Formats: sequence, structure tokens, C-alpha cells
Amino acid sequence: MITVPEARARILAPLRPTGTEIVGLAQAWNRVLAQDVTARLTQPPADVSAMDGYALRATDGPQGAVLHIVGEAPAGHPFAGTVAAGQAVRLFTGSVVPQGADCVVLQEDVVRDGGAITLREAARAGGHIRPRGQDFAQGARVLAAGRRLGARDIGLAAAANHAWLAVRRPPVVAILSTGDEIALPGEPVPAGGIISSNAHMLAALVRNAGGEPVVLPNAGDTQEAIAAAVASAPRMDLLVTTGGASVGEHDVVQAGLARLGFTLDFWKIAMRPGKPMISGALGGAAIGGGAIGGGAAGLVPVLGLPGNPVSAFVCAILFLVPAVERLLGLPSGAPRTVRARAGAAVRANDHRADHLRARLMPGEDGGLPVATAFERQDSGMLSVLVAADCLIVRAPHAAALAAGEMVEIIPISDFGF
Amino acid sequence: MITVPEARARILAPLRPTGTEIVGLAQAWNRVLAQDVTARLTQPPADVSAMDGYALRATDGPQGAVLHIVGEAPAGHPFAGTVAAGQAVRLFTGSVVPQGADCVVLQEDVVRDGGAITLREAARAGGHIRPRGQDFAQGARVLAAGRRLGARDIGLAAAANHAWLAVRRPPVVAILSTGDEIALPGEPVPAGGIISSNAHMLAALVRNAGGEPVVLPNAGDTQEAIAAAVASAPRMDLLVTTGGASVGEHDVVQAGLARLGFTLDFWKIAMRPGKPMISGALGGAAIGGGAIGGGAAGLVPVLGLPGNPVSAFVCAILFLVPAVERLLGLPSGAPRTVRARAGAAVRANDHRADHLRARLMPGEDGGLPVATAFERQDSGMLSVLVAADCLIVRAPHAAALAAGEMVEIIPISDFGF
Repeated sequence: MITVPEARARILAPLRPTGTEIVGLAQAWNRVLAQDVTARLTQPPADVSAMDGYALRATDGPQGAVLHIVGEAPAGHPFAGTVAAGQAVRLFTGSVVPQGADCVVLQEDVVRDGGAITLREAARAGGHIRPRGQDFAQGARVLAAGRRLGARDIGLAAAANHAWLAVRRPPVVAILSTGDEIALPGEPVPAGGIISSNAHMLAALVRNAGGEPVVLPNAGDTQEAIAAAVASAPRMDLLVTTGGASVGEHDVVQAGLARLGFTLDFWKIAMRPGKPMISGALGGAAIGGGAIGGGAAGLVPVLGLPGNPVSAFVCAILFLVPAVERLLGLPSGAPRTVRARAGAAVRANDHRADHLRARLMPGEDGGLPVATAFERQDSGMLSVLVAADCLIVRAPHAAALAAGEMVEIIPISDFGF
Repeated sequence: MITVPEARARILAPLRPTGTEIVGLAQAWNRVLAQDVTARLTQPPADVSAMDGYALRATDGPQGAVLHIVGEAPAGHPFAGTVAAGQAVRLFTGSVVPQGADCVVLQEDVVRDGGAITLREAARAGGHIRPRGQDFAQGARVLAAGRRLGARDIGLAAAANHAWLAVRRPPVVAILSTGDEIALPGEPVPAGGIISSNAHMLAALVRNAGGEPVVLPNAGDTQEAIAAAVASAPRMDLLVTTGGASVGEHDVVQAGLARLGFTLDFWKIAMRPGKPMISGALGGAAIGGGAIGGGAAGLVPVLGLPGNPVSAFVCAILFLVPAVERLLGLPSGAPRTVRARAGAAVRANDHRADHLRARLMPGEDGGLPVATAFERQDSGMLSVLVAADCLIVRAPHAAALAAGEMVEIIPISDFGF
């Protein structure tokens, strides 16, 4: 058995970012930039007014001064002339400050009488002006390659005059559920069987992380069925299987994949839930569609997750989501942890890192939030996973903790609610 | 001017949840349940083995006992007979525990010799069995109406045998940018003009919140252009405009909407950035496509956001995102705030609630994270918004704070990075 960090490092090491594609700005949300975005213009493009008011020369503007209004310049309609001594031009938020003027006085700070204004406050040079280039200058890098694009990034890319962005192609993640006992929802359930819950759960995690999931038909517990399902898969950057990850007589995933040239790296991690987790790679040539990236040297990396849905979920956030991030060219590694206080005593841990499903409550004033593990931690209980707010991470051989001591938690909402 | 909480309450009050539609489980991620999901079966459907091992009668199982193997039952292939005294059945994770047996012993805790096993550890009644219904019972509510569906919810709905889910129709949010000075990225920019950055930024926020954004063509600064753009909009649950939200001579949004029967509720909020923000409603009959929900009595609610992109973003997370959530039937209100320590002194606040763009750094061991406001808080600076991790929320008339004192922050990552 290897440790969680070692397993993650070995899973991530061979992964290479996918290629680049161009998307329209309206489709760029949650995509990862493949190239820097540099400003195609300077913003603001000229000195502009930050408020509704009047442009004038600050030297003309002691309190009580009277100025003659020589024009009006709404945003998008710059004043063509020059502001001379004793003159003012009516401006609005976003209006270009006309030549000659060097300040704006607010409309509420003047008394207007026909074609003239009297200043109730002295003007201040530069006042209420957004100087040209205040936000960014043409040629400046406004967004860096490797950034995952949110709403404000899309606004900034637009402001920098980009209608198109170069982003990473979403990694294709094929998902194969295995087991004679599973059926899709609504389909006939075999005797003693259960409904398949992993495939679409994992597909949602992959999509949220920025990948493109492809759910393969369930494969029964034979080497032939598993090899056939994988061989018929589309071109993929990563293959995920669920179930059959041990090496019992009926854990046939490794044997099935071996028919396609599978090379095992490891299959046991010192963790709970989810000890049996396969990591390895398939020879690209053996796959129907051929490999398109993912691993080095044309190999398709494989993650074989346990069949228990809670184990599959925990392994997915520890290993699959970072793998998708790495394929997107993001810095990827351990999921974000935050500190909390234990809401109840926690037992000493054995040699396997534990991930306790827990509720999170706000702490006292100024204090950390409080994480309390559920009594029932059976890895078959999806209902407990759904009720949980976080996972309390317990290192191998961690000492027992009293209530109130500090713990590290993984907030589950980081993975899309 | 009204306060931020009062403004939000008045915006949310008339909003009604959208109707229900059915989506396949594979499309249900980030949708909001319109109906409870009740389990269509009991999970596990029978007592099943939690591990690979052997089923037997606990009374037969003192340490050293020898039992005769009478069968094997892989998951999905239950043993048809009954386990009698002195007998054991080979099981695997997920196998149904056969009749007669009341415990499972682990395969590593026995010595197998052909058709018999010798127990190295005493058996324990109920050991390594997941009892029938441990996760949920048929008829139990496993997910409640009003829950936003994440990956694990999809897994649980699948496990409960639902291939289809009843969810809220995504509210249609029409987005209209106004201003003579704005152009879409890549299009010719008028003299003194700038690139429109709000529409697609807001569209991304709306989509992340679960709405369906429709970006209307930009409208110039005339009442006619604004009325025409809105009148040609599709059926919508909410209209969002940007720009022209004050009442200067060139702030024509209210006047343009008035041509379509607009009723103003308020247009000034005691906040910064973003004081001028219109809230009101359009008569549904006046709209081209007709209203389809959103407001009470067939009215289409309207939010008129400021044109400055930073102001528009802040107003959107304070008012637009909660509005979309309310239209989805979610409990909605103020955005989540968390506590942090001020990384630098903060000035006393005036009568307007402030929302300072700030960086967030981890705190010292056991301490809160540290939020430090940027020097430059000009609402024209989208680059600063993009660099920010959070907004420090400052209440009206809040006293000055020294570095290290507690502040409330809104994490911007809550809105999709």
C-alpha cells in the first residue's frame, strides 16, 4: 500500500495538458485559458469622467467661480473643441474629458443658471477623472494562461477586446461501471442486484471539473465484457472504472484491462474509504479510438475506483478531479483543505488515512467552524455522504483528538455543491 | 436611498418559482429539485457482505472452527440454498448474505484448505454485514425539494432508482446593455467608446446560478432604442439592464422602460460601488413574448444595474444572483459571508455600505484568514476585481478598524471562480 500523496503524485506525473481550441466568449465560462490574454486596447481609452458633472481647467476653479458652458459631451459623443479659460463642458459618467480641461466638478457641486455654472466647491486638478489606462494598457497581460475563467474574467477579456479565447480542450473521461449486480435506474434489476449510482455521479464531478465525461455501458464481471467495453470506447484522455478493483476471484477489472495491454502501477492505497484503487495505463494502440492525449507516450491513464459509491466519491475528489485539472493544464494536487475544530472526540487513526463524513457548523465569534463526524461511516451509505458538508482528513497514525482540537477538512461544496 | 437588505427584500418579495420540468439524471447537475425524491427501493435490498469473505452462522464460529464450503455467491448471483450448521458460503463485497447465515468472516481471517475453512478469528454475529435498508428504505425521502443537485445527489437519486427528476425550469434572464459608447468585442468602437464587458459577465453569473441568460443586442441611449430592444425580447422571467441607471439627461433606461408600462420601485441604494440601481416591474402584456413567470401577477421584474463593470458585478452578486435563486425556489437572501481579519486598517465608513475588493490569505495557525483591501477601489477597474479573492463588506457608518480586527467578507469564488 502506498500513501495518498504518493498515489496522487504517481497518478498525476504522466498526465499532459490537452490541446488548445478556440471558443467564443459566451462559451468560455469554466474553461481554462491555454494562452495569456493581452489587452488589445487601453482602458479607459482616454481620460474619462467618473461622474456626471462639468469639465474645466482646475486653475479656473476656485470656489465661487463662474464658468461658461460651451458644450455637452455624453458618453460616446466626445466634445470636438478645446476647453479654454473660463469655460466648462457638460459631461456624464464615461464621457471623454475634452482637450484643455484637467478636472471634473460634480453636478451637485455647482449651481447652474442657463449657460453658466457657479462652483460651490473649489475644483481639484484631476478630480473625478479616470485617467487613460487606469484599468489596463494596450499590450498588458490581463489574464494568464492556466486560469479557469469565471464571470469577471469573461468581463475583463471582453473589455480587452477579445471575442474569442484559446482554451484547453476538455479532457474526455470515459467512465465504465463494472459488476454483474448493477443496473441503470429504471432498468430491470438482477436478483440481489442494486442500481448503478457511480457512473453519473462521477460524470457530474468530471463535468464540474471541466472534463467531458462519456459514460460507457455497464460491463459484467468477465474479462471479456470489460475488454470489449473499453475497446469500444471513444478516443479518451483518461479511463475511469468502478468496481472490481480488488484482486478477488471476481475482481476482473485488472485482468480485463490486461487484454488491452494494461500496465499496472499500483492498486492499493493506505486510505479509508477506498483502499483498493487501481492506477495504471493502457497502450493507446490497443484502444478502439486510439489515445488522444492524457498520458505520456500515447498511453491512456486508467483510474480504477472502488465500487462503493462513497469510496468512489472520495477517491474521485482525491485523485480523479486533480487528474482532470492536470489534463486542463491547471496546477493540481491535493484538494483544498481548511481548518476547523473537531465537534466531538475523534479516535486515534490506524495506518490508513481516513476521510470522515462530517457536518460543518459556524464557529463562535472569531473562531474556526466546527466539524462533527457522523456516527455511521460505512462506505455503503450514500445518504450520509449527501448529508455531509465536509470530509475530516485524518493522517495515518494520527493521535486521538478531543472535541475542540483542530482538524483539517475538505469542503465538499468545492466540488459543485 | 434605501439600504442593501431592504433593497434585496423588495427585489425578492414579488418573485415566484418557475414551473417544473423533467430532466434525465445525466442532465440534472446544478438543477434545483422541484419535488422530493423518495426511494423506490430499499438499499441495500438485502443483507449484503461488506467485504470479501465467508458467510456462516455466528454460533458455528469460535476461533479454530472448521466449516465446509457449500457454495459461492458473487455479487449479483445470490446463493439459492440455506447455510446450515457447520457450513459456509464464499461471498464477495456486495454479495447477498444467504439464508441461515448471520455473519461474514473476512477472507484474510480464515485458512482455506480445499473445500473447508478454519477460522483464525472468532466470528461475530452481524459482522461485516451491511443490513438491508442500512442506507435507505423504500419510500424514504432521500432528497428534498429545493435542493440544488450536485454529483453525490445524482448518485443518491440513481441509487434510489430514479432515471428522471422533476426540477425547476431555468429562469430566463434577458440582459440588455445600454449606452452609445459601447461595442461588442471585435466590433467597430465609436469615438471615445469602450468595449461592452457587462453582458457576458452577467450571463456567466446567471448561468452559474442556474438561470438561462439571453443577451439582447446593445441599445443606444434613446428611449426608443431601449423600448424596442426590450419589446423584442423573448419571454423572460427577469430583465436586467446595465448602464443609464441614474436620472441624468442621458440616463434613459427608466424613460425607455416607461414606454412599456414600467413601474419603478426604487433606484438608489445606499451602497458603494453601485448606488444607482433600478428595481421595478414591466407589465407582462407590454412585452413581445409575454411574461412567463418571475414576478407576481404576470409582471416582469426588472433590475437596472449600473454600467461600471465592477458596480454591475457587485450589484449582481448582491441582488441578481439571489433573484435567480428565488426564481429557482431556493432559499435566497444575502450572499454567504465568512469572517476574516483585516490585513490593514480600514477607514470609518460613510452612510453607504461598502464592498472593498480584497485579497485573502490564510491566517496563522488556528486563526481566521486575512483580508486586505486593494489600495485602488475605483469602480472602473475590472483588473482589480479580477485580482480580488473577496469583498470586505462594510456596513453603513461602520467605525474605523485597525489591522487584525474582524471583518465580514463575501468569497468571490462562491460565484464560480
